[in-house]
Amino acid sequence: MTYTPGLHLLVTAHTPPGSTLLHSHEAWKDFIRNAIAAHGLTEVGASFHDFPGGGFTGVICLTESHISIHTWPEYGLFTYDVFLSNFRRNNDATTQRLLDETLRFFEATHHALTSLRR
Amino acid sequence: MTYTPGLHLLVTAHTPPGSTLLHSHEAWKDFIRNAIAAHGLTEVGASFHDFPGGGFTGVICLTESHISIHTWPEYGLFTYDVFLSNFRRNNDATTQRLLDETLRFFEATHHALTSLRR
Repeated sequence: MTYTPGLHLLVTAHTPPGSTLLHSHEAWKDFIRNAIAAHGLTEVGASFHDFPGGGFTGVICLTESHISIHTWPEYGLFTYDVFLSNFRRNNDATTQRLLDETLRFFEATHHALTSLRR
Repeated sequence: MTYTPGLHLLVTAHTPPGSTLLHSHEAWKDFIRNAIAAHGLTEVGASFHDFPGGGFTGVICLTESHISIHTWPEYGLFTYDVFLSNFRRNNDATTQRLLDETLRFFEATHHALTSLRR
């Protein structure tokens, strides 16, 4: 049987008018690092970039794969991926929880979800 | 109308027996940075991690979004994402070309593709 690394959840999500959380990466970086620690995941690298005029990109590499975000504050929109492999333990529930916590953090009003078993 | 950032292609791909390209990130890093330059994309950050015993994670953040890879040499398998936004120009064709070039680089024998407009 082919090995199946884990669950990859992808959303494109919308925030309330006037939200400032999409402008720069600092607040999200603090939030996600706390969440990573709370879920017992392990960071092995990261990259953050704020765009002139607003919006940011952030990626956290984990031993369990990665979390990525791209924001477009001018459209009140962000894309978000959580991909956790099940190499050491089954992380499916954690993948879903991390996504739910993120949507709450940004007070997302609605989102489109793709769930990919890969 | 809701803004649609761009095209995200995701594959889970398999390599020939004995391939060493999945073991560490150096060869892929050189390949992908050359490809990024050739396609006129702009890197804004990156993270690479080799795992003890083999396998690596790599993410390149671009002004156009990101490229990510995770490899499992013990299964001859890798997952690969190319997500390019169309903010400055339409990058759909480049997204597909980057994926095709990567599959050729790893001499992938077969792969499962998910194409996500987000």
